[in-house]
Amino acid sequence: MSKGITKRAENYSQWYNDIVVKADLAENSGVRGSMVIKPYGYAIWEKIQAQLDFMFKETGHENAYFPLFIPKSYFAKEASHVDGFAKECAVVTHYRLKNTENGDIVVDETAKLEEELVVRPTSETIIWSTYKKWIQSYRDLPILINQWANVVRWEMRTRLFLRTSEFLWQEGHTAHSTAQEAIAETKQMLEVYAEFAEKWMAMPVIKGSKSESERFAGALDTLSIEAMMQDGKALQAGTSHFLGQNFAKAFDVKFTNQDGKEEFVWATSWGVSTRLMGALIMAHSDDYGLVLPPKLAPVQLVIIPIFKNEEELSIIKENVNEITQKLKKLNISFKFDSRDTHRPGHKFAEYELKGVPVRLAIGMRDIENGTIELARRDTLEKKIYKIEGIDQIIMKLMPEIQENIYNKAFTFRAENTHKADTYEEFKNIIENKSGFVYAHWDGTPETEALIQEETKATIRNIPFDLPDEEGVCMITGKPSKRRVLFAKAY
Amino acid sequence: MSKGITKRAENYSQWYNDIVVKADLAENSGVRGSMVIKPYGYAIWEKIQAQLDFMFKETGHENAYFPLFIPKSYFAKEASHVDGFAKECAVVTHYRLKNTENGDIVVDETAKLEEELVVRPTSETIIWSTYKKWIQSYRDLPILINQWANVVRWEMRTRLFLRTSEFLWQEGHTAHSTAQEAIAETKQMLEVYAEFAEKWMAMPVIKGSKSESERFAGALDTLSIEAMMQDGKALQAGTSHFLGQNFAKAFDVKFTNQDGKEEFVWATSWGVSTRLMGALIMAHSDDYGLVLPPKLAPVQLVIIPIFKNEEELSIIKENVNEITQKLKKLNISFKFDSRDTHRPGHKFAEYELKGVPVRLAIGMRDIENGTIELARRDTLEKKIYKIEGIDQIIMKLMPEIQENIYNKAFTFRAENTHKADTYEEFKNIIENKSGFVYAHWDGTPETEALIQEETKATIRNIPFDLPDEEGVCMITGKPSKRRVLFAKAY
Repeated sequence: MSKGITKRAENYSQWYNDIVVKADLAENSGVRGSMVIKPYGYAIWEKIQAQLDFMFKETGHENAYFPLFIPKSYFAKEASHVDGFAKECAVVTHYRLKNTENGDIVVDETAKLEEELVVRPTSETIIWSTYKKWIQSYRDLPILINQWANVVRWEMRTRLFLRTSEFLWQEGHTAHSTAQEAIAETKQMLEVYAEFAEKWMAMPVIKGSKSESERFAGALDTLSIEAMMQDGKALQAGTSHFLGQNFAKAFDVKFTNQDGKEEFVWATSWGVSTRLMGALIMAHSDDYGLVLPPKLAPVQLVIIPIFKNEEELSIIKENVNEITQKLKKLNISFKFDSRDTHRPGHKFAEYELKGVPVRLAIGMRDIENGTIELARRDTLEKKIYKIEGIDQIIMKLMPEIQENIYNKAFTFRAENTHKADTYEEFKNIIENKSGFVYAHWDGTPETEALIQEETKATIRNIPFDLPDEEGVCMITGKPSKRRVLFAKAY
Repeated sequence: MSKGITKRAENYSQWYNDIVVKADLAENSGVRGSMVIKPYGYAIWEKIQAQLDFMFKETGHENAYFPLFIPKSYFAKEASHVDGFAKECAVVTHYRLKNTENGDIVVDETAKLEEELVVRPTSETIIWSTYKKWIQSYRDLPILINQWANVVRWEMRTRLFLRTSEFLWQEGHTAHSTAQEAIAETKQMLEVYAEFAEKWMAMPVIKGSKSESERFAGALDTLSIEAMMQDGKALQAGTSHFLGQNFAKAFDVKFTNQDGKEEFVWATSWGVSTRLMGALIMAHSDDYGLVLPPKLAPVQLVIIPIFKNEEELSIIKENVNEITQKLKKLNISFKFDSRDTHRPGHKFAEYELKGVPVRLAIGMRDIENGTIELARRDTLEKKIYKIEGIDQIIMKLMPEIQENIYNKAFTFRAENTHKADTYEEFKNIIENKSGFVYAHWDGTPETEALIQEETKATIRNIPFDLPDEEGVCMITGKPSKRRVLFAKAY
């Protein structure tokens, strides 16, 4: 335990919060429900953004920017969307403040907006009202646009990164001439998210379709990736929606097809948010703090000199310089922490807390012996190496750590994944073991609601990669063709 | 003229708007005062962001993110700041909408916020309320943070990029233990902006201090860079503020110095916005459309095949492939436009409109001769080159174009910069010639206000790089030690 982090086993929720705050990732602000993302947390988010942005562009998407404010009436145009989103939102009603005679500042009632503006909770409505102007013919399609933005959904109970009133995200909004093409896009973007989660976040995910009651408001189909956190709960890490022609109809967006006939346009939308930060933290961290996969670590390696005086430090620096020159060539980001205000042990704990994947420590004795100590954050193993060739060892170690973190999460998930054939079994697992449960379900919202009410577990998704299997619903005994994924969720 | 762009000389303002809209940079949205930044415009903004972000990090800054909403009372804490910013702003008063019985959506009056939230017009107050928690000792300083964000300042008369209610920007907010260090930071960031404007935007700028009445609300000193647009008006392209201890005092942010004494912290803030897009457009474009300096062009080169059928196209493709392989190695971004839906002439006009720096055109005759046609967007010159070695010519041409665009703007500014020694002279220049005018001023806000009222020209800044020169104020005859820069401004 470092800097007084609560142990995972003692209080999981406090453990999470301790890591977020003490590793300098984020903190609550003076504005209820809004967080401050601190530089170290934001640096991780920038790494996430950069890779996702690259993958979006590789798949043909461009970035653009749409307004923060959406006129209230836009929400009314898509019936199910308004119920899902226009409710808990921030509403701008005035555009001026004024001073009173006694020096207070109050809202200027003469500056009331004719129509209230909603701070975007998601941008389908403002974007489809714009696409109407851009789309006339099949030649204008597809439109493949992504936006990086802040959004606001009013939340009463908030948790840093996991649920905040304002959060940062990306939202893709595409327009297509056929349902088939839009469906393919929806799937493609889910694959992009899954690949990012597994290869970059080192976090295995289950891909699948949401049940009808868990769909995005206004979607015909919602696909999701679901990851297991270390308390066995599921976290929805990304969603991709096939919106059919719902928004095209709501905003009257038609195109002339190759045969000269008018049709409504087909739509998708897809997004991930700063919630991924929460997933990253909860998937890998331990009682010593954050554990970062090398691919997302702002600092991949830290070098800590052990020295008694300036002279020793300068000798160490010289030796380290040879190593860092090589690390630069290998594109490994590093930090040399020569502060004399903190003892080495304090620094060790600090970088463990911050999840830096590899730590090197080097003192005068090491230099005499031509050696250096290397510690891995993922396994906490320490080992002495020859300085000569340490760069090659580090280069091979980084992907090994990345893989090990993934494998650890994969094994943990496997150990906490169960099958239940009866409702008794199901309830027993959910209550006493936690984790993922594959069970048969009759496909009705009523059964789904009952299970949720009684156990708090929900259908996370209907997994793609599960074989068909004849069975019967554990509640109603009605026939079922495949198991679905149940879990308690964030 | 292409796609019906209004000529600059006919109607400058319409010319500007035509370029923004017809080159697909941005458009007005259904939300009054808010714009949609289209993919091509956003791609230029991404280039601007990437380079500035690199320069900020090179000078030791980190990115972070602070809340969009600021409690109303925060503004009241810094007296001059509230007058400057809390007036024309978007105010969030409620956090829920509800359906009425007849199906309308209305604000839920039961969900009224206890304290109204202001959508950030700038973030000094929310950031300094946070810094209070971060700063105890001199060891916590300096804090060097930048934020990329959207901000809202309610505007009645808006113009795409130049003045919109919502805009994108970056805002640096730094905290220091001494006035000296904060002043040095203020100057450093102005230098960063000036370097970016001149080397990347190819736009010469005048660096200087603002007069007292033009200072940022809450600053002790505001530095600016001022650029000349092609109508002779000035555009403030970036500002850097020395805030003294004003915000530290307002939010009670103290630190213990090395002698163990408590002091208030010293502050700076600095920003540039999507307004730079407006500057970029107006500084260089012509009657054919946008002119982009190669360093900020999303596509630096376009290749247009001249073909009659698929067979010809495929032969051309083969030949072009050799060129593009080399361009890739030289890191030159290019596009091969083989659409058969548009004629070459149409394509030429389109890329001229979009400001692509270099255009290559190649047909069957060229291939027989081993030649290719190259056209420069900046000079509109066309020339035939051998295909062999064209990559080397292009590599040398890019910086030449960058420099030529800068030189053209520099010459234009020189030709439209004047000195005035009497008010008659001054008024004559402002009315009949436009451009920049260097004149003596007695240093009082009263004289400044009078000049503005009578001529609409304002003091843009008190330039750093102007020699001291004894003189007398053109209005009051009082002594003046240096000329200041006057102009009408955006």
